[in-house]
Amino acid sequence: MAELRKDPITGRWVIISTSRGKRPTDFVPETRDVGDPANCPFCYGNENKTPPEIVALRKDQSAPNSPNWKVRVIPNKYPALGIDEPLAKKGVGMYDMMTGFGAHEVVIETPDHYRPIHELSSGEIKDVLTLCQNRVEDLHRDIRFRYVLVFKNEGPQAGATLSHSHSQIIATPVTPIRVKEELAGTENYFRAKERCLFCDMINQEKDAGTRIVYENDHYISFCPFASRFPFEMILLPKYHQMDFYGSRSHVEDMAKALKITLSKLSIALNKPQYNYLIHTAPNRFSRRGYWHTIAEDFHWHFEIMPRLTKAAGFEWGTGFYINPTPPEDAAKYLREISVTD
Amino acid sequence: MAELRKDPITGRWVIISTSRGKRPTDFVPETRDVGDPANCPFCYGNENKTPPEIVALRKDQSAPNSPNWKVRVIPNKYPALGIDEPLAKKGVGMYDMMTGFGAHEVVIETPDHYRPIHELSSGEIKDVLTLCQNRVEDLHRDIRFRYVLVFKNEGPQAGATLSHSHSQIIATPVTPIRVKEELAGTENYFRAKERCLFCDMINQEKDAGTRIVYENDHYISFCPFASRFPFEMILLPKYHQMDFYGSRSHVEDMAKALKITLSKLSIALNKPQYNYLIHTAPNRFSRRGYWHTIAEDFHWHFEIMPRLTKAAGFEWGTGFYINPTPPEDAAKYLREISVTD
Repeated sequence: MAELRKDPITGRWVIISTSRGKRPTDFVPETRDVGDPANCPFCYGNENKTPPEIVALRKDQSAPNSPNWKVRVIPNKYPALGIDEPLAKKGVGMYDMMTGFGAHEVVIETPDHYRPIHELSSGEIKDVLTLCQNRVEDLHRDIRFRYVLVFKNEGPQAGATLSHSHSQIIATPVTPIRVKEELAGTENYFRAKERCLFCDMINQEKDAGTRIVYENDHYISFCPFASRFPFEMILLPKYHQMDFYGSRSHVEDMAKALKITLSKLSIALNKPQYNYLIHTAPNRFSRRGYWHTIAEDFHWHFEIMPRLTKAAGFEWGTGFYINPTPPEDAAKYLREISVTD
Repeated sequence: MAELRKDPITGRWVIISTSRGKRPTDFVPETRDVGDPANCPFCYGNENKTPPEIVALRKDQSAPNSPNWKVRVIPNKYPALGIDEPLAKKGVGMYDMMTGFGAHEVVIETPDHYRPIHELSSGEIKDVLTLCQNRVEDLHRDIRFRYVLVFKNEGPQAGATLSHSHSQIIATPVTPIRVKEELAGTENYFRAKERCLFCDMINQEKDAGTRIVYENDHYISFCPFASRFPFEMILLPKYHQMDFYGSRSHVEDMAKALKITLSKLSIALNKPQYNYLIHTAPNRFSRRGYWHTIAEDFHWHFEIMPRLTKAAGFEWGTGFYINPTPPEDAAKYLREISVTD
């Protein structure tokens, strides 16, 4: 009827409801408005509608903030945190607060208004990922930033306000609580086993085979044993690496794995809205100019979460999730969809 | 522009976006279908459409599963966890799982199909709360249950599938991760200060006054300093008590505080959809028949969360929340709405 499964990283329990066992066709995607390229600030010719670009990959020697770019990174026009705020902390009685210091950037992944990321070529996706790696590495050089998150909101139900394909990068002056949970989990595991939890998970998944979605020489994607959401996936390097920007070799394989994994998801669920995010190790650069030595027990990864179910009081109150599609079923559907790179 | 605030209980950071500063009228409630009483399994005459009742408060000596009840508790027809499952745990390689053992009950709060909870009289709400206390206490007698959560999904956006006013109770064989976070936070605080964190918070809120929504002799509601959501509120006893069902005296004040707090919310935001949940201490009854001695550092409370904003990739990836309405502004709006009991 149902079973409880524990996420080995965070210790979070999930209810996998086998009796309901929802199939891909049980999820009806909400219709979306694709917007109008003429008014889209992410389209060619509208470069002046965004703040001046931070960096762009260009087809030619064209000037910054002019068309002919391939991937363009700009400051978010409505940033959640501001780079110009001074970083200041204070107590308010028993409470703690900080100024809203941080960075909030947007990565426009293609000049084409209508192409979602999985419809780009592997080569184009490689360019996007390389530029994201550069941004994360660059932001880590500012020691006031403790963490840098790369994420994508695909579709309005997933929080996107513009339909033109883009990702976002937010750098925060504190390490976020969800990342701390993962760091604590992998650190405890490493202490007990002297091995990386994610590397062990990859081995077990390869042995079992039932939850794997896609695999190439250096990357693998699978539906986690304790998936919170139907068709949730994790995508990560098969070799040990704690920093997203540490994975500079084999970016072709990363791009190909992302393209194929997202294409399978798009076909299986008829263009679902989704979020993905990259969990990488926190910034370890210190005031004194050297790297903090921490146990190299983290393993960077993508988390891909289709927005098919709604979190309700139970989920908010407990952190438990009720997942109506067993990950083995989801992985089987996804595996059987054939996609070419 | 924005500031970062830390939740003193969990250590979670929240971005309070003061520049956006959304007012109540900026949130447009989604329209809702109220359903048809003739087909509603929670209405008089349809008692046979639900599993047999666990307990009901009745107007007269009417038989179980007949009309004339005032509040009715039934097993959930589609339970997330099942009471008939044997509790069994096993390892699957490096993973941990458990059978889907648990209890899932529904509290039908009124026979009237059209009345939301805040439109019931304080006396009627008192009956609902007393019955909830009884159920939590009764479920705690089963030592296989580690935790019992009472929660409400009001409206489909908040996860409700039926519009007739009801709450749910789920008993789980493990203590949920979000509760563990709160327990760890209050325990650390108690160790450092030898005082209850929530009691200290109430004192500071009373001194500041700016975030208080409502207060009577024994209960208080306020918008938390690090509110995750616009118009989020906490409602709790002003005296120290770790168990929801330990608050047997002054239930009138509890009911009145809940009625007035939810009424203010309903008026301010034009009948918003929302969740609330009760965080109470976990079950401390042990196999050997006595109570575990744990530091009495927890303080039970309601968390009330209107569903006005959507969590996106950033929220999922970090546990950070971006709240566009400062709690001081929300509390001021709510405080100024006059509601009679």
